[in-house]
Amino acid sequence: MHKTRYGYSVKTKLSYDDAVARVTDELKKAGFGILTEIDVKATLKKKIDLDFRRYVILGACNPHLASQMLAEEIEVGLLLPCNAIVYENDDHTATVSLLSPRAMLSVTGRDDLIQTADDAEALISGVAAALE
Amino acid sequence: MHKTRYGYSVKTKLSYDDAVARVTDELKKAGFGILTEIDVKATLKKKIDLDFRRYVILGACNPHLASQMLAEEIEVGLLLPCNAIVYENDDHTATVSLLSPRAMLSVTGRDDLIQTADDAEALISGVAAALE
Repeated sequence: MHKTRYGYSVKTKLSYDDAVARVTDELKKAGFGILTEIDVKATLKKKIDLDFRRYVILGACNPHLASQMLAEEIEVGLLLPCNAIVYENDDHTATVSLLSPRAMLSVTGRDDLIQTADDAEALISGVAAALE
Repeated sequence: MHKTRYGYSVKTKLSYDDAVARVTDELKKAGFGILTEIDVKATLKKKIDLDFRRYVILGACNPHLASQMLAEEIEVGLLLPCNAIVYENDDHTATVSLLSPRAMLSVTGRDDLIQTADDAEALISGVAAALE
């Protein structure tokens, strides 16, 4: 796992399909349900006839943390859900990356959201660690 | 319309349902399709039995801009799609807010994404202006 400026990235030894199943399962254990799923490859092919690697954006939400954030700042839905991405590498393994809630919420400039952001960060970094 | 730290917000005179239809239409005119939709009120009720105002998170994507960003930085899917939110106010009007692509992409720390971010920002601020 390595920490990027705005997330956690793990180059797994899993196939793409297995990686999608695995991160979905780990997120669920951490209290995050998958609310949305965007098949990037299929979308780019359909909309602009572009060939792209297998790539999915999963929108994960922990309803307890989300409701705390929304109670503090009604506009924070602009920054939800918390994304996980899975994409296929050229060697047919898959990389899984997870958005850093702290990086995401930093754009609000609201220091009082830090506790909730830290709670989310601990869960998300735990998911990334579990994928190794 | 007012600019927040991470988006544009418009308190419309529209009903919630009309506001959802209107922002969907304006985004479409700007080349953004709605790829995801999260009914926040229904989700919080179902998951944690919490009563909340009517609130939706729409995930909007302009495939040309998204593919440019992905070509520059494979991890950028963590920051896609670009969200619009609609929520009902106590006076039964609805507020529509749109995420600032520039604020969103600032977390990457990549100056070379600025041109694409600026192109997206111009479109999104235009959508916000059209809602007034």
